[in-house]
Amino acid sequence: MKDPSNPVCRTISTLLSRIGDKWTVLVVTTLGEGPRRFNELRREIPSVSQRMLTLTLRNLERDGLVNRTVTPSIPPRVDYALTELGCSLLKPLNALAEWAVANIETIHDAQRRFDAEADARAEAA
Amino acid sequence: MKDPSNPVCRTISTLLSRIGDKWTVLVVTTLGEGPRRFNELRREIPSVSQRMLTLTLRNLERDGLVNRTVTPSIPPRVDYALTELGCSLLKPLNALAEWAVANIETIHDAQRRFDAEADARAEAA
Repeated sequence: MKDPSNPVCRTISTLLSRIGDKWTVLVVTTLGEGPRRFNELRREIPSVSQRMLTLTLRNLERDGLVNRTVTPSIPPRVDYALTELGCSLLKPLNALAEWAVANIETIHDAQRRFDAEADARAEAA
Repeated sequence: MKDPSNPVCRTISTLLSRIGDKWTVLVVTTLGEGPRRFNELRREIPSVSQRMLTLTLRNLERDGLVNRTVTPSIPPRVDYALTELGCSLLKPLNALAEWAVANIETIHDAQRRFDAEADARAEAA
């Protein structure tokens, strides 16, 4: 990450943005508990739309982080599971999530202070 | 992260999206090497626009992750530095960046395979 202008760093920044994406984090951590069908994921992540879940799963499959298995029953059954690569992402992702959980109150306090100061400056101007 | 529908989880997902943001990662890791002035950051992250750098720094300051110090010289000098909280983010952020660096080639291979298969399916249809 020393020279953000070089292509490798740019690719990595893009990858980080995608991995840090809200739905990606929620889908990967949910699949970290075990394979799920599409509708199970929808139930466990109620705030996600069908479209965003489809898109997120497709991107994760494209990146090789998630396996999509179709069982040709009637109706066909589709299961999603983390690949070995996907599982290896759980550790750093959980570390970041733990940092967020541990510091969310401190961050909220900072935000309230910042907004109050901005309001005071606006009134004084 | 067990119940993504509850407000705390939603807040944390939102926080993760922001922290995982490309410019946030680049600014935090650059400031991890030491305090910088605005123009120094622009030089070290050439791909960032003035507007996006201003916005990213303002959000980081609002979250309590970055301190902005104005020295009233002529012209005024503005320095940006990580706060203690900002420094504590470096460890999990670097772990995620290291994962990305270690796996970028595997991910690119998976993407190429996925796209080739999608093309083959499109031709067969």
